[in-house]
Amino acid sequence: MLNVETLSEGSVTQQVNGRLLVDTEGQGLIEITDAVSRWVFATGLLHGLLTIFCRHTSASLLIQENADPDVRLDLMTAFDRLAPRDAGYVHSTEGPDDMPAHIRTVLSGVSLSIPVMEGQMALGTWQGLYLVEHRDRPHRRDLILHLIGA
Amino acid sequence: MLNVETLSEGSVTQQVNGRLLVDTEGQGLIEITDAVSRWVFATGLLHGLLTIFCRHTSASLLIQENADPDVRLDLMTAFDRLAPRDAGYVHSTEGPDDMPAHIRTVLSGVSLSIPVMEGQMALGTWQGLYLVEHRDRPHRRDLILHLIGA
Amino acid sequence: MLNVETLSEGSVTQQVNGRLLVDTEGQGLIEITDAVSRWVFATGLLHGLLTIFCRHTSASLLIQENADPDVRLDLMTAFDRLAPRDAGYVHSTEGPDDMPAHIRTVLSGVSLSIPVMEGQMALGTWQGLYLVEHRDRPHRRDLILHLIGA
Repeated sequence: MLNVETLSEGSVTQQVNGRLLVDTEGQGLIEITDAVSRWVFATGLLHGLLTIFCRHTSASLLIQENADPDVRLDLMTAFDRLAPRDAGYVHSTEGPDDMPAHIRTVLSGVSLSIPVMEGQMALGTWQGLYLVEHRDRPHRRDLILHLIGA
Repeated sequence: MLNVETLSEGSVTQQVNGRLLVDTEGQGLIEITDAVSRWVFATGLLHGLLTIFCRHTSASLLIQENADPDVRLDLMTAFDRLAPRDAGYVHSTEGPDDMPAHIRTVLSGVSLSIPVMEGQMALGTWQGLYLVEHRDRPHRRDLILHLIGA
Repeated sequence: MLNVETLSEGSVTQQVNGRLLVDTEGQGLIEITDAVSRWVFATGLLHGLLTIFCRHTSASLLIQENADPDVRLDLMTAFDRLAPRDAGYVHSTEGPDDMPAHIRTVLSGVSLSIPVMEGQMALGTWQGLYLVEHRDRPHRRDLILHLIGA
């Protein structure tokens, strides 16, 4: 039978907000794991919940393998197949890359929720955090972080 | 190098639960940004984390552009392409719109996590919150809100 | 006009972390609702926010209908159509099931956020929590739970 084991219990005293600005260079994944990890540690909170929120409708956040870079290549190809560029969209005034970017953002999502334990995100061995730029041109992307705990 | 800038720090004292009932009129997106925004402000909490949870398996929540209504039209067409109505589903007893509705709900998700700062959701300029009805017929959809902070 | 009704207000005092290990037997959905539900109740917290986080890049979490098992069958078929096994992936060293597993994990996500009220998750009548194994072979999957509230 499946059973949840309790790992730790504690109080809740504090919350901290942060901002991460990421300059993108057109379509692709940009790893943000280290920047987020350093900030989480620097807040001094040991246990809690981290939320990362992307304030855009054509860039998204996801967690994926940080080992083989080919995974990121195949992911971008998959997005292209799931929301093709040339699908006869009604919304086309902002360019042929805009509507597919909106759909790809919906499919991958704009927020991540990650438990923090002992001052570190509870990521698995192969998990990395990525901002995904879905537009052709470079953009400055604005991420808001929220950490609550103690 | 990417660096997270700390915006604010504070205590955590309170949580509030709310419910939003939405009557849908068949497939389509219904914006809930204003209703949620007014409630967040009315709770009096200035900083924290907002969660919106949709208690259904054939309706979902997403964040998308609130400017051009054509974006919502293209999104519904995209859902139709990603989870076609006529794909020979085994589960068909609840009608031809039911199984595609389940798949579309999985793809877009049933919860949103949004940081709150200065009494407002930290949404980007073009971001709106939407309930998506994936069934053909009208339904009353039940959303639970949770705000934690101070 | 849409209006959010406040259901309850209270303090925030505690957080608890838990771990759920799930042994999978190849591709498929494994329901974890009961295990999570029992743990939430056992923590003694009555109101709060539950987060479940999957520490893997080829297994995901989702909420779906827990009534007709055919829904799970159709969902696996849908994942197979959305991220086909034989799509000429560049990343192929870990086997033909690995890259599609990564894409399917991105599409469904690795975390769930669920409000807790009166000691119970605020799930709808038909909602069940599932771990989805996307690899062919059995794996031990590691889920971290975080509950914050009072």
